Amino acid sequence: MAARTVKLAVIPGDGIGPEVVAEGLKVLTAAASEHGVAFDTTEYELGARRWHATGETLPDSVEAELRGHDAILLGAVGDPGVPSGVLERGLLLRLRFAFSHYVNLRPVRLYPGVGTPLAGVQPEDMDILVVREGTEGPYAGMGGVLRKGTPGEIATQDSVNTRLGVERVVRYAFAKAAERPRKKLTLVHKDNVLTFAGELWQRVVREVGAEFPDVSVDYSHVDAAAMFFVSQPQRFDVVVTDNLFGDIITDLGAAVAGGIGLAASGNINPENDFPSMFEPVHGSAPDIAGQGKADPTATVLSTVIMLNHLGLHDAARRVERAVAEDLQARAKNGVDERSTSAIGDGIAERVAGQG
Amino acid sequence: MAARTVKLAVIPGDGIGPEVVAEGLKVLTAAASEHGVAFDTTEYELGARRWHATGETLPDSVEAELRGHDAILLGAVGDPGVPSGVLERGLLLRLRFAFSHYVNLRPVRLYPGVGTPLAGVQPEDMDILVVREGTEGPYAGMGGVLRKGTPGEIATQDSVNTRLGVERVVRYAFAKAAERPRKKLTLVHKDNVLTFAGELWQRVVREVGAEFPDVSVDYSHVDAAAMFFVSQPQRFDVVVTDNLFGDIITDLGAAVAGGIGLAASGNINPENDFPSMFEPVHGSAPDIAGQGKADPTATVLSTVIMLNHLGLHDAARRVERAVAEDLQARAKNGVDERSTSAIGDGIAERVAGQG
Ligand SMILES: CC(C)[C@H](C(=O)O)[C@@H](O)C(=O)O
Ligand SMILES: CC(C)[C@H](C(=O)O)[C@@H](O)C(=O)O
Repeated sequence: MAARTVKLAVIPGDGIGPEVVAEGLKVLTAAASEHGVAFDTTEYELGARRWHATGETLPDSVEAELRGHDAILLGAVGDPGVPSGVLERGLLLRLRFAFSHYVNLRPVRLYPGVGTPLAGVQPEDMDILVVREGTEGPYAGMGGVLRKGTPGEIATQDSVNTRLGVERVVRYAFAKAAERPRKKLTLVHKDNVLTFAGELWQRVVREVGAEFPDVSVDYSHVDAAAMFFVSQPQRFDVVVTDNLFGDIITDLGAAVAGGIGLAASGNINPENDFPSMFEPVHGSAPDIAGQGKADPTATVLSTVIMLNHLGLHDAARRVERAVAEDLQARAKNGVDERSTSAIGDGIAERVAGQG
Repeated sequence: MAARTVKLAVIPGDGIGPEVVAEGLKVLTAAASEHGVAFDTTEYELGARRWHATGETLPDSVEAELRGHDAILLGAVGDPGVPSGVLERGLLLRLRFAFSHYVNLRPVRLYPGVGTPLAGVQPEDMDILVVREGTEGPYAGMGGVLRKGTPGEIATQDSVNTRLGVERVVRYAFAKAAERPRKKLTLVHKDNVLTFAGELWQRVVREVGAEFPDVSVDYSHVDAAAMFFVSQPQRFDVVVTDNLFGDIITDLGAAVAGGIGLAASGNINPENDFPSMFEPVHGSAPDIAGQGKADPTATVLSTVIMLNHLGLHDAARRVERAVAEDLQARAKNGVDERSTSAIGDGIAERVAGQG
């Protein structure tokens, strides 16, 4: 009998979303039964299909239902028929903002055996935890258009940075850095150009840093950071950065740490005032949907972040170990031609097989 | 006797700036004498040293003098003693804005023989011309701070995109794409989140694109573009993008195309209403200043962009060929231990030696 039941909302979404989510749930179920946890899942149809059928992105009633869950697992949403921005702003960002997911947690880790496009980089050179702000900055949606369609047209886009918003994510990042062996935090920004926002971020890092005397603090402009992700990933331990810079450098991080098929993320509300949401960094990849070609590993690694967030650290370790073993086995076997579900089966078996 | 005299303002700047600029001028002089051109140079002391001594970044009188030149060659400015942003906003960006350098031209090219951190990428896979907007976007300096130092503090940073500003850089990029064999233009933006600015950029690309039916048009979100610069650089021919995205992806481009020691740029006013300014992408690198360790190649390649801008295409080809030969010779000779001036000598000799 399960000692604890986790109410999990599942949003499979579009394209490869349902395929990878199925494998994530398969692995979660295998881990749960080993650790006395049960996942009570409710599926929500949200995304491109719903939008095409009804015009809805996220009805208020569904948002209210989601709110009653302990966590959300999301596959991917979108298809080429939906105008750019509709599902992003109407669903993904709406959930991140409504549920105060101010920590967008994105590990950039090169697992042993995984290929990287970077020549000569070893797994020990790349173990970065990016703490991306998730609820403000240029993602606030503020700005507007004046004199549209005329030669005098002007479109603005405003980055909003609040003391509240910056401080809470910076404090979270310091706490994470303090737990890690290197205890190093790098602020990534562009304070020489974005002087108003940059000064606030720098000042908050200085002030909050005083509470964490063991953590060493570094700073990198975002352009230099992009360079260093490729040329010197060893420079970084924990990175804290704004919403847009974090978006860019974590996709870059995915590219250098084995590809988008492995990149996991958590949209976290650390206080648990709202359910946190876990999703692979990749999109719905309509071109390969329904063919069993998608790698579900990014989703499985997102469930690792979820298990840790739920305090189920043993289960998290078990799943992560199974993934690491699977990735090493792939390296030995050469080209991986397994289907999405075969990879999920393989990881689930390793989860079950661990003593 | 020189058939044409080019009035060139030279801003050596700080750190390694003077060293690399000296080599740039050496190579320019060698090329000039072969092509019936003379460079009439005037040096301006601007940068950290001047700021420390006088508090000045760019006196109006100096700006007016610079305006009377045909072009500006800049090394690098800054040292750790100058607060972040002072020289950037007070000198570099002031010049870009005052002289309407709306095209920030940054080739990302892997020359044969040059090492890249990307395993398996060949020179033919990486020949990207990034056309970065240079006079607006998040660089406009607009925004502000409210309730500074209180828990309710808010700092904003506004990206300003005008029809005028977007259209002129997009048209320039299309014209460049039309001249190249692949004739492909990729807009890099984040239109699913920065919806106001993104819609304007997309619409302008569509409208201006109608004037260039031979050019194929593609779009990539900036996060995906960062990934593709590493995983599939072949995707790109000409890229047009906003000021901040361009800043980030061109530093990334430098990292994958042989390092910051080779990355060149031109801040161009295509109409020649104002002098254009040419500068290596790298900074003043105070840690290696004065030691003859800096690679002047980025500066020399910036003079290639300058020569082309001045219509001196034969001279530009000659210098670029000399650089390409020097880079191939390096690959054969193994580790390059030549000093800054020895590299400059080597390139200048190749310039002089070409028939
Ligand atoms: C889909 C998009 C809104 C999203 C973002 O920009 O945050 C995605 O790129 C991500 O990184 O999760
Ligand atoms: C120094 C800085 C203002 C500048 C920029 O951000 O444009 C630099 O990074 C560059 O790319 O030329």
